[in-house]
Amino acid sequence: MSAIGATRGEIVTAAGVIALLENGRNLTTPVLRAAVARLAPPMDTVASYHFGWIDQTGRPAEGDGGKAVRPALALLSAEAAGAPAETGVPGAVAMELVHNFSLLHDDLMDGDEQRRHRDTVWKVHGPAQAILVGDALFALANEILLELGTPEAGRATRRLTTATRRLIDGQAQDISFEHRERVTVQECLDMEGKKTGALLACASSIGAVLGGASEADADTLEEYGYHLGLAFQAIDDLLGIWGDPASTGKQTWSDLRQRKKSLPVVAALAAGGPASEKLGELLAADAKNPENGAFSEEEFALRAALIEEAGGREWTSEEARRQYATAIAALDKMDMPEEIKRKLVGLADFVVVREK
Amino acid sequence: MSAIGATRGEIVTAAGVIALLENGRNLTTPVLRAAVARLAPPMDTVASYHFGWIDQTGRPAEGDGGKAVRPALALLSAEAAGAPAETGVPGAVAMELVHNFSLLHDDLMDGDEQRRHRDTVWKVHGPAQAILVGDALFALANEILLELGTPEAGRATRRLTTATRRLIDGQAQDISFEHRERVTVQECLDMEGKKTGALLACASSIGAVLGGASEADADTLEEYGYHLGLAFQAIDDLLGIWGDPASTGKQTWSDLRQRKKSLPVVAALAAGGPASEKLGELLAADAKNPENGAFSEEEFALRAALIEEAGGREWTSEEARRQYATAIAALDKMDMPEEIKRKLVGLADFVVVREK
Repeated sequence: MSAIGATRGEIVTAAGVIALLENGRNLTTPVLRAAVARLAPPMDTVASYHFGWIDQTGRPAEGDGGKAVRPALALLSAEAAGAPAETGVPGAVAMELVHNFSLLHDDLMDGDEQRRHRDTVWKVHGPAQAILVGDALFALANEILLELGTPEAGRATRRLTTATRRLIDGQAQDISFEHRERVTVQECLDMEGKKTGALLACASSIGAVLGGASEADADTLEEYGYHLGLAFQAIDDLLGIWGDPASTGKQTWSDLRQRKKSLPVVAALAAGGPASEKLGELLAADAKNPENGAFSEEEFALRAALIEEAGGREWTSEEARRQYATAIAALDKMDMPEEIKRKLVGLADFVVVREK
Repeated sequence: MSAIGATRGEIVTAAGVIALLENGRNLTTPVLRAAVARLAPPMDTVASYHFGWIDQTGRPAEGDGGKAVRPALALLSAEAAGAPAETGVPGAVAMELVHNFSLLHDDLMDGDEQRRHRDTVWKVHGPAQAILVGDALFALANEILLELGTPEAGRATRRLTTATRRLIDGQAQDISFEHRERVTVQECLDMEGKKTGALLACASSIGAVLGGASEADADTLEEYGYHLGLAFQAIDDLLGIWGDPASTGKQTWSDLRQRKKSLPVVAALAAGGPASEKLGELLAADAKNPENGAFSEEEFALRAALIEEAGGREWTSEEARRQYATAIAALDKMDMPEEIKRKLVGLADFVVVREK
């Protein structure tokens, strides 16, 4: 288990976190499935394929539906506010719906052909279905919350809407970065804060909001989730270059193929020194070459080695630890059961040591 | 003005309806512009182009932003509930945002290159921007309503979300119909009720909901708007085949080029008789021919003539009048100022006699 968590004395073990995620998935999935079943054909089938519940031929599958960090956070946040985990379930379902809405649209916009070891929806069912089903999941997220009909649900939907708008802004920035030669570290962190931080912030507070938490407590939980999101994304950026395709379900050098200006890249370019300069020259030449995706393994390996030599890999690891520490520190601002705090720390440990 | 409206004794003239639409646009546009200005670059620019506020080079334009029937309905519905028109403004803005979200995504899915006499967003700014800006406008619609922070706003957002889900279902059905040889008249009406009726129903009630109307009154206004939407769509289907491109801003035979199973087509196919059978044979052969879009004017004219000969044009005109009458009849279920009722009738007159 993570040595980071251990510094706090009492830790939740890896097995404990896996049980936590599984428990979250067990509470959330039946409600999520019932929500998806509301969609008109063929959107229900397309969504079920995306979630990994059926295969391409429509047969039931035990697919990889993702790590389900967001639902676990939503349920824990309800408990942090003193409500039962069940109070957070509509929030957990809404988070999964919005998260997967964004994946459906992002995979299409980015031209990604693989997700969770399977062909993406646009690849299997065509671009129109990826757009429509994404739209439908987004609408469904609001529907699930608003039909609770409570003032808390109104507050939760408002926070979710704000987070979703930031998520969309972040994706717009991310796409625009691919066409720019230089992006600063601060611009990259700002983009990642929107693209990943905003939604994890919302996941970490939505159950508490549904459970009647004060705005101040909800904001504190958002702070935890926001920095956890930045830690999560820093790890994602490392996995996007050095991750094992067998674990991540993506291609080797996935982010380099897409010219992503991810944290290791921008940190390496900002570092200065011979490796940084050489990397800058290579990437500037690459930007003029439309055949980037057809590079050999050796060419990608060279770029990855230069990023590492310039310090981009190490800086990103450290950034993940800094964001992790800020996330954990936020928890002390709120009065919550010690057991829940330990679980939130355990989940953060899991996020920064994960390999997929 | 329309003889249909005249049967009710007191009428709102064509000039009166145009003033009504302009007044709605004047109250709504500044708030809509301020909402769009919240979007991060370049999405704000892309959205401004779509709304006709700037041209492709970014210069201010006096573009055609659409007929603005929905905002006018939203404001009138506030007045129908005894509230000032201004109470309906956030609802009017939300309706325009959702309507334009759906146009951005639909134009991309349908491959439509022209809208309101200009190139569509995906054609000018690329598919990713059409997806992203559509997503952002949808989120913004919820944001504008929910930030009012009132229980009425929660109710309004819930109705808007339900309507949007039906809209998406309708678009999914519409796309699936293009790949089917036969669609029944009932299936077509059901699809159009979702695709057009649901959003006009919401537009016709959202101001009233924000003004504190009872659920029963909101439902009555929805009934008016739903049937008005079906009348609107029947006219749209006529314009999609026989409309003047100079007015509609679309290509000649637009719906025939896209193999739309619109009302005149399905009614003609269902009618029986020699023209209906001949049409059925031609469309069945067309369905196997991927070069449909490259047909000559004469070939499209032949299909249009057969639809008319089989009675599809006349049936659709009558259907528009039936739906119009049902819409108007619904208004008698609700106690509202006579002047507002006359305006709602006038707007319905406008919808069924319009030429674009």
